[in-house]
Amino acid sequence: MTYSFSNLSKNIKRSEIREILKWTRKPGLISFGGGLPDSDLFPLKEIADITAEVLETKGYLALQYGQTQGEPEMIEALCYHMSEFGDKADYDNVCVVSSSQQGLDLLSMLMLDEGTPIIVEMPTYLGALQAFSRHNVNMTGIPMDNDGMRMDLLDETLSKMEEKPKFIYTIPDFQNPTGITMSVERRKELIAIANKYDVPIVEDSPYRELRYVGETLPSIWELSGGKNVIMLKTFSKILFPGMRMGWIVAEEEIIEKFVVLKQSVDLCTPSFNQLILANYIKKGMMKKTIEAAKKCYEPKKDAMLESLKKFMPEGVKWSEPEGGMFLWVELPEHIDTKEIFMTAIEHDVAYVIGAPFHHDGRGKNTMRLSYSFPSVEQIHDGVERLAKMVKSIL
Amino acid sequence: MTYSFSNLSKNIKRSEIREILKWTRKPGLISFGGGLPDSDLFPLKEIADITAEVLETKGYLALQYGQTQGEPEMIEALCYHMSEFGDKADYDNVCVVSSSQQGLDLLSMLMLDEGTPIIVEMPTYLGALQAFSRHNVNMTGIPMDNDGMRMDLLDETLSKMEEKPKFIYTIPDFQNPTGITMSVERRKELIAIANKYDVPIVEDSPYRELRYVGETLPSIWELSGGKNVIMLKTFSKILFPGMRMGWIVAEEEIIEKFVVLKQSVDLCTPSFNQLILANYIKKGMMKKTIEAAKKCYEPKKDAMLESLKKFMPEGVKWSEPEGGMFLWVELPEHIDTKEIFMTAIEHDVAYVIGAPFHHDGRGKNTMRLSYSFPSVEQIHDGVERLAKMVKSIL
Repeated sequence: MTYSFSNLSKNIKRSEIREILKWTRKPGLISFGGGLPDSDLFPLKEIADITAEVLETKGYLALQYGQTQGEPEMIEALCYHMSEFGDKADYDNVCVVSSSQQGLDLLSMLMLDEGTPIIVEMPTYLGALQAFSRHNVNMTGIPMDNDGMRMDLLDETLSKMEEKPKFIYTIPDFQNPTGITMSVERRKELIAIANKYDVPIVEDSPYRELRYVGETLPSIWELSGGKNVIMLKTFSKILFPGMRMGWIVAEEEIIEKFVVLKQSVDLCTPSFNQLILANYIKKGMMKKTIEAAKKCYEPKKDAMLESLKKFMPEGVKWSEPEGGMFLWVELPEHIDTKEIFMTAIEHDVAYVIGAPFHHDGRGKNTMRLSYSFPSVEQIHDGVERLAKMVKSIL
Repeated sequence: MTYSFSNLSKNIKRSEIREILKWTRKPGLISFGGGLPDSDLFPLKEIADITAEVLETKGYLALQYGQTQGEPEMIEALCYHMSEFGDKADYDNVCVVSSSQQGLDLLSMLMLDEGTPIIVEMPTYLGALQAFSRHNVNMTGIPMDNDGMRMDLLDETLSKMEEKPKFIYTIPDFQNPTGITMSVERRKELIAIANKYDVPIVEDSPYRELRYVGETLPSIWELSGGKNVIMLKTFSKILFPGMRMGWIVAEEEIIEKFVVLKQSVDLCTPSFNQLILANYIKKGMMKKTIEAAKKCYEPKKDAMLESLKKFMPEGVKWSEPEGGMFLWVELPEHIDTKEIFMTAIEHDVAYVIGAPFHHDGRGKNTMRLSYSFPSVEQIHDGVERLAKMVKSIL
């Protein structure tokens, strides 16, 4: 029997990173791999209690089919949660989704055809590249510096493009993979450039709540007055990923389109999970969770920066994030982090190779380090091992 | 600002049924509308207890990212659950999905391009039509009789098709919307015809466990020895929909493809929900739930059949399901169930119009009645109201 497949399915490749992360299960190995939250932070007892309460008081809702846009109680809780971080959104600006990856999936379905031009940061989130490239789109990458996407290069690129891109995709806060934050000036410039060329902005914002240093910057959504921006949010990084709970924020007409698409994709996000999280937020527990996460991750970030400074040889550069989970390392150009990956495994340390975060495969000398999951001590030891390995190669 | 959208998104229409179901919120109205399980059946206390246990013993897994194919514990539980109903599947034959609607979504992505020919039953499940027609495919409908899809017509259709269809989509047990079950002979014929023309079968099987009369028939998956069949399963109908939990059963090579696709769609189905349900199954509670559901729904089905017989005027025909949640009514041909829908609402009763279940919009004189949610008394009263309304029109 010969099954035959769609054109779209031929564009999808198994994630290279998922493949090599298999090696990180080696006993004794310290992994700076996946962007996993520290499971010591999971509020197990609280979630069990809230689940019992939700089932007792509204179990008939929690286990029944829900509305595609999301449970009303959840949408209201999300609006409240955002307002705590300076983001104003009305009920009709929100659609609950089953993880922000589903947000990327729906966005791709809504906007992308084969050959559609879009603009992304270089490097950028792998899962977004995966969702976009499924449609065999035409991606243009804009380089970044320590203040985020380079606006001079964005303007120049847009001025030269023959076909207007469908959107500009950015992760302004503690970007995955670099950890870099876009400055307020750049955010304003981005909005001005997007308006000038009439191109919507997609603001992917999973880490925004996790700032350890300095003041929270206004989101692009907020700076633009909620116009011309689609914001993707999730609780996977600030609370726990096992609930798969995200949401999209956009103008009402765009949310309506997402809702219709979502009907054909999964009808609705689990009411069960939505009501549990809605109550978690309403009881003020989300704020406490975020405070606890910040307290947990800040020393880990500091430990990684200190260890890099202490152990890494000259010629190695890294970013200095103010929040989030990641840090970006550049080795001297002649070193290919994929080629030396197994050597790192022999040294009992793992990272994520940088090239797959580039739409065009460049960045072979780069790597992403995540500091959220290992302990401070492991971070210290792991960076020492990594530095030893790098020195042995240089 | 002018957003611009994909070609695919233009093929998606808001569900006509969801629109008219809004009217069913009228106080005092009896609805035979959505296929909702009876919420009195929801095992609230048991789920709260299992959730507490799961969080206590493996909360670090339940709230963390999981494997895309599914949590190993859940996959094993699903294989066990299926074996209880005569379906043999190995670990690598299963991929957990976030509702069987996601199964349809992934199937569409994997197999369909614009213009792809596929074969469906006539009528068939609306959510499948919605997922398939997103890709602007070329659907051919095969009429049914009381034994399911007409195999003579299927053979004839396939012999004349210039391009081989990508699959034959069927719901063999207590079909949505008709309630009809495909006989064993037909299932065998279907497999023979599918093999003759080298076309895979998609067996959508949400109601299989809910048989009230007679013996469970072997699934197409089982009869074919697991070859050339993709089976879609869900707990939304036999347990509760609020968890959004389904699974795909297929040959290992096909499952691998679904897993890669699912990565870009939502990374993984909530580990939280999977571990709760895995434990529910392992404790033998699923079997009890199904027994309770059968005990609840059988008298409702009988009440509906009795009331139809008692109240409906001559010229009205209906199916006699042996399980599931639905029953199919045909009015005299000159009556359009969409046109008289608001008259039904005036009579304080609602149904689902039949035309949207046909890929080509035929079936204007048909309606679907669901007996799972209303009480026996409401079913009696509702059918009486419906019959009165039909009589007033005839």
